[in-house]
Amino acid sequence: MAKELKELTSRSENYSQWYNDLVIKADLAESSAVRGCMVIKPYGYAIWEKIQAELDRMFKETGHVNAYFPLFIPKSFLSKEAEHVDGFAKECAVVTHHRLMASPDGKGLVVDPEAKLEEELIVRPTSETIIWNTYKNWIQSYRDLPILINQWANVVRWEMRTRLFLRTTEFLWQEGHTAHATEAEALEETKKMLEVYADFAERFMAVPVIKGVKSANERFAGALETFCIEALMQDGKALQAGTSHFLGQNFAKAFDVTFVDKTNKMDYVWASSWGVSTRLMGALIMTHSDDNGLVLPPNLAPFQVVIVPIYKTEEQLAAISEKVAEITSKLKIQGISVKYDNNDNKKPGWKFAEYELKGVPVRLAMGARDLENGTVEVARRDTLTKETVSLENIDLYINELLKTIQANIYQKAFDYRASVTRDVNSYEEFKVEIEKGGFLMCHWDGTPETEELIKEETKATIRCIPLDGDTTPGVCMVTGKPSAQRVIFARAY
Amino acid sequence: MAKELKELTSRSENYSQWYNDLVIKADLAESSAVRGCMVIKPYGYAIWEKIQAELDRMFKETGHVNAYFPLFIPKSFLSKEAEHVDGFAKECAVVTHHRLMASPDGKGLVVDPEAKLEEELIVRPTSETIIWNTYKNWIQSYRDLPILINQWANVVRWEMRTRLFLRTTEFLWQEGHTAHATEAEALEETKKMLEVYADFAERFMAVPVIKGVKSANERFAGALETFCIEALMQDGKALQAGTSHFLGQNFAKAFDVTFVDKTNKMDYVWASSWGVSTRLMGALIMTHSDDNGLVLPPNLAPFQVVIVPIYKTEEQLAAISEKVAEITSKLKIQGISVKYDNNDNKKPGWKFAEYELKGVPVRLAMGARDLENGTVEVARRDTLTKETVSLENIDLYINELLKTIQANIYQKAFDYRASVTRDVNSYEEFKVEIEKGGFLMCHWDGTPETEELIKEETKATIRCIPLDGDTTPGVCMVTGKPSAQRVIFARAY
Repeated sequence: MAKELKELTSRSENYSQWYNDLVIKADLAESSAVRGCMVIKPYGYAIWEKIQAELDRMFKETGHVNAYFPLFIPKSFLSKEAEHVDGFAKECAVVTHHRLMASPDGKGLVVDPEAKLEEELIVRPTSETIIWNTYKNWIQSYRDLPILINQWANVVRWEMRTRLFLRTTEFLWQEGHTAHATEAEALEETKKMLEVYADFAERFMAVPVIKGVKSANERFAGALETFCIEALMQDGKALQAGTSHFLGQNFAKAFDVTFVDKTNKMDYVWASSWGVSTRLMGALIMTHSDDNGLVLPPNLAPFQVVIVPIYKTEEQLAAISEKVAEITSKLKIQGISVKYDNNDNKKPGWKFAEYELKGVPVRLAMGARDLENGTVEVARRDTLTKETVSLENIDLYINELLKTIQANIYQKAFDYRASVTRDVNSYEEFKVEIEKGGFLMCHWDGTPETEELIKEETKATIRCIPLDGDTTPGVCMVTGKPSAQRVIFARAY
Repeated sequence: MAKELKELTSRSENYSQWYNDLVIKADLAESSAVRGCMVIKPYGYAIWEKIQAELDRMFKETGHVNAYFPLFIPKSFLSKEAEHVDGFAKECAVVTHHRLMASPDGKGLVVDPEAKLEEELIVRPTSETIIWNTYKNWIQSYRDLPILINQWANVVRWEMRTRLFLRTTEFLWQEGHTAHATEAEALEETKKMLEVYADFAERFMAVPVIKGVKSANERFAGALETFCIEALMQDGKALQAGTSHFLGQNFAKAFDVTFVDKTNKMDYVWASSWGVSTRLMGALIMTHSDDNGLVLPPNLAPFQVVIVPIYKTEEQLAAISEKVAEITSKLKIQGISVKYDNNDNKKPGWKFAEYELKGVPVRLAMGARDLENGTVEVARRDTLTKETVSLENIDLYINELLKTIQANIYQKAFDYRASVTRDVNSYEEFKVEIEKGGFLMCHWDGTPETEELIKEETKATIRCIPLDGDTTPGVCMVTGKPSAQRVIFARAY
């Protein structure tokens, strides 16, 4: 069983297969009977709950409140913002009827033709339209602004090729939708939430990200500017981990949302929207995990420490359990989450493999000799190293160790990214380098045409124009036209 | 403005209108552009978040974990359990297509006929079918049991007549779905969750409930037995606040979910499911609120205390604010949530009305004289009484007061229910009494036909056969046939 459990395809053999194996064997998620929709299993959902809790706290600390808007969007709403409809109409789940009936041939159920909706409803792919239609009634004056609302919800985009967490037909996310009296304030909000996302990714997920602006090709449908955080996976492919959109007055104009400002002038309301999704789970998994399984950052692990007793007799188990209870209680006081696995049906070796696969940051093993010596074996998931440690101040030791692990896996990911990020100066070189993966920092002439050409020829896209990047001007590697600064190219998920 | 804010229809004038006014004016929810779907506004959602947090904690304490299953259910799944399909087929939102396209006439969007789904998808009205289809792959042996999973989700039932929170096309809920090796264990789980719901309703919502079993007519489609908690609203109508279903082996048989038991015998798995929804918000609102607005139990109020400064000069405000900061910090140490409303654009009278409308349990008002005297004015929302209290030990005073309010509104609801609960012994008397509302305790012969007749003639249904009720036998008030015990009749939401 221990062997079977650990039978992951290795990353070098087949990275994509390794990812799928891992998601399934670590009990994170699985495909469902519904095309492209996943079941998020309890262990995977527990990580998502940690992500939710931290983000929700950060949103509230920055002045946001939660609310809930309808799952369905009237078809006509989608058409109101021209670019928005282009972006989403092709991948919509459409509700056309509201009743089933027994089939006339007696076999099962059919749609009742009498129950056709007057106007079709779209299962929300994102909620700008229904929310701005609602805000119209909430906003008359500058005194009603700003509105700083977030929603935790499920959304549906009919994707043709799906992968667990990374791209699924239905996914879970949060979407912030804010309304402001001025352009400057809306832009400030957009950037503030980008900072929140970057801070969350780095401090909790231990995933280093680059903050940047999307090129026009990659912009959200309906936005004037899309800001993003971009992460790099271990196979050298980029993953967009979160976006924050400056929507200008586009949705206010589409839904006729005006307000009277302090000088008694009428204007359209300014907007932002921002979201992260269960896709973050994919980023988390692919950034840190190894051929033995998941590696979780202590700040998001459902339990940070697992304790496994090693015993021959019931008496030994009883004595170990008593000591473990002491340790557990000391760890809990430090705010550390602990699982004690005294399941008698499984051998320690099986348990070791299981918790390694599931990425538990720290494993403690305690046997009879440890009990005598007042020690415990401490194993780190990130480095796979073990040492025997005195039980004296074990709580402080583990607390420090968890911080060390959190910092270590961040640093490891940071170093990897640094090792595969490089300047590329000619398109010839680019075509060679892009095959090796990683972030390529290149000069680009700023036109969609050039970006499109590069994408067609190399499958690489501009991940972002980095906000904190080198701003030395140069010339486009393809056209030789002037370039204001290097931008980041990569192949992406 | 203060006047307009408070313009609620009174309960005696039009109870139904009072409820709608209250939900809208207290900023809890509103109707959306989508038929039957509501927008839950931030203040309403904050109450729902409190409900969620407490229930989630209680579920976890009783050994449950959360997971997430798809929004969509293949049409064929619904047909697999015969009673289940009867219960839900008539009110399903059906997804038939996965793409829109520009209308050939150039006007807006139409469904792309090329993008018709092979099999229609139903937006989940409840998730037994998709979950049991999943459990099939998770369960082989008794070692895989029990499965104790809960899901927080949105569901859709195409209701013809909708009312904010009470009956909406889309609503938010949690649904527990558990799998067990034995009938006894599944039944024990069903009853355990009923206790959790009753405990939550009484201790947090301050809503007294009667625990009981549904008659066959009112049973969940697919259950062998439906347990419920029934509450009584101020207009004398009952409201079903939560249900816990013993599903027997129905869904295991429908989805062929078998397991090998300890004796190596194959058997179908036993099941329970249980849920509460945003309908609880309706119960909360209608149980406690009055003609001045919402009355919230301290245990679920988004903020328990609001502090309003009363001042003429900036200096006075500064001095009051300084003192308020001290009070707030002391209250927070006690775990009390506080809002300080020093908004300069609104008068104290407006604020008083606003927080009365929004049901904040305790309001503190502090003026210049209070500051001199070391006192504060304390107003209770439940009794609408005020007193001047010394600031010394104000934190302990408020802490006690919140407990008193919580207990008081529970007792008030309990006493009201007692006052309108009575034994009725003849059908003639029943027809008179049912017009007055309340719970009527009657003997019933146990047949669906008699219940159906009573429903047709009086619009009353059996709310439940109480678990803790008087079990003296008698004769049915309609047919004179034997009755094992009195059951509860009422008109219901």
